[in-house]
Amino acid sequence: MLYGRNAVHEALRARRRPVHQIWATQSTLRSEGWLQSRTVDVVDADELTRLAGTDAHQGVCARADGYPYADAAGFLAAEAPLIVALDEVQDVQNLGAIARTAECAGATGLVIPERRSAEVTPAAAKASAGAVEHLPVARVRNLADFLADAKAAGCWIYGAAGTAEAVPWTTPDYAGGIVLVMGAEGTGLRPRVADSCDALVALPLAGRISSLNVSAAAAALLYEIVRGRTTSA
Amino acid sequence: MLYGRNAVHEALRARRRPVHQIWATQSTLRSEGWLQSRTVDVVDADELTRLAGTDAHQGVCARADGYPYADAAGFLAAEAPLIVALDEVQDVQNLGAIARTAECAGATGLVIPERRSAEVTPAAAKASAGAVEHLPVARVRNLADFLADAKAAGCWIYGAAGTAEAVPWTTPDYAGGIVLVMGAEGTGLRPRVADSCDALVALPLAGRISSLNVSAAAAALLYEIVRGRTTSA
Repeated sequence: MLYGRNAVHEALRARRRPVHQIWATQSTLRSEGWLQSRTVDVVDADELTRLAGTDAHQGVCARADGYPYADAAGFLAAEAPLIVALDEVQDVQNLGAIARTAECAGATGLVIPERRSAEVTPAAAKASAGAVEHLPVARVRNLADFLADAKAAGCWIYGAAGTAEAVPWTTPDYAGGIVLVMGAEGTGLRPRVADSCDALVALPLAGRISSLNVSAAAAALLYEIVRGRTTSA
Repeated sequence: MLYGRNAVHEALRARRRPVHQIWATQSTLRSEGWLQSRTVDVVDADELTRLAGTDAHQGVCARADGYPYADAAGFLAAEAPLIVALDEVQDVQNLGAIARTAECAGATGLVIPERRSAEVTPAAAKASAGAVEHLPVARVRNLADFLADAKAAGCWIYGAAGTAEAVPWTTPDYAGGIVLVMGAEGTGLRPRVADSCDALVALPLAGRISSLNVSAAAAALLYEIVRGRTTSA
């Protein structure tokens, strides 16, 4: 059950998964032009909360097929792909936020592990403002194996890290095929994943707290990558 | 009533506001070393939820003085300040997230309007991972007037915008005193605030959705500013 205005709207726009039924409040139906050409069951907010299983529905929810995960191998077939991989990121809000930024930055796709990772739930779809309906997201059995495949396909693998071995985030030139790997909240990259990277990159931390949020770090790194790719193109 | 592990911990570390009493669950008391030198009332999770008014307490909450807002004029007295101003940002999660990134990026302080803005609530403090205990946050009666004062003090004012008049985010050199102004979710900068800016800067949007989240945009812009200031220093 999808919920939230952007999440439902982008699912309809992207047409990557069938949407079977839409419910909305009268006021949301009135304010959202894109709903007015659709068959919508008008219900009150309490009924929407019951249907969506949360009061974060913003006046609209929809019954849709499950999230259509993509095939990660397809990402590697793209010309100079920009792939974002998440190493056991746990929070669906962070997954959604990173997907939104990745889509805006023009990423080819997002890769997550099958296990011990936040998945593309309706909450993640809402947190992404519907970006996951456009940005392909693939699940892989083993992230280190995927990174090895990506390397074999000619990609450079950059892992976000705060450790001493990392180079400043502006050092790589970021041209060509790239995988940017972000670690889990609190724990960062697992050793085997970090070992799979060609380079670890770090954002400078000038403050009195120890770390950036993973989605803020992803935004800063992705736009530095966009800058690098624009400059070198 | 502060809640959340980082929020309470950073309030104690920063010592900018008195903390009068601390409550924690037995398991949080055991796992958080910094709590063990403190006088802590051990309670169960339900009692913490009642005290904090939310179940997002992560096993600890504390009664503290209200947030000690700073004086915005003090920011302008700093050498080459980097100030972040929020133009009626409504969501405490976004306020907190931006404060965390601003602190990590080495910002001098954060400025918010007195009215129609998210404030530094306990929810914002938790969303900032306690960064607001270190980063000074000031409220101003009128944001455009503050920007005029900042300009008079020698700062350059950059507004984040998605409009056609904006220059690419990498164009300015960002040396010297700077104010970065972020607009509200959905609506962006108010016209009078946009008019107060020396330049509007835009992040490229390559995807199929229309906008970045304001906290992701702030992260991308702040680290581009850090890059610019590092290069020119």
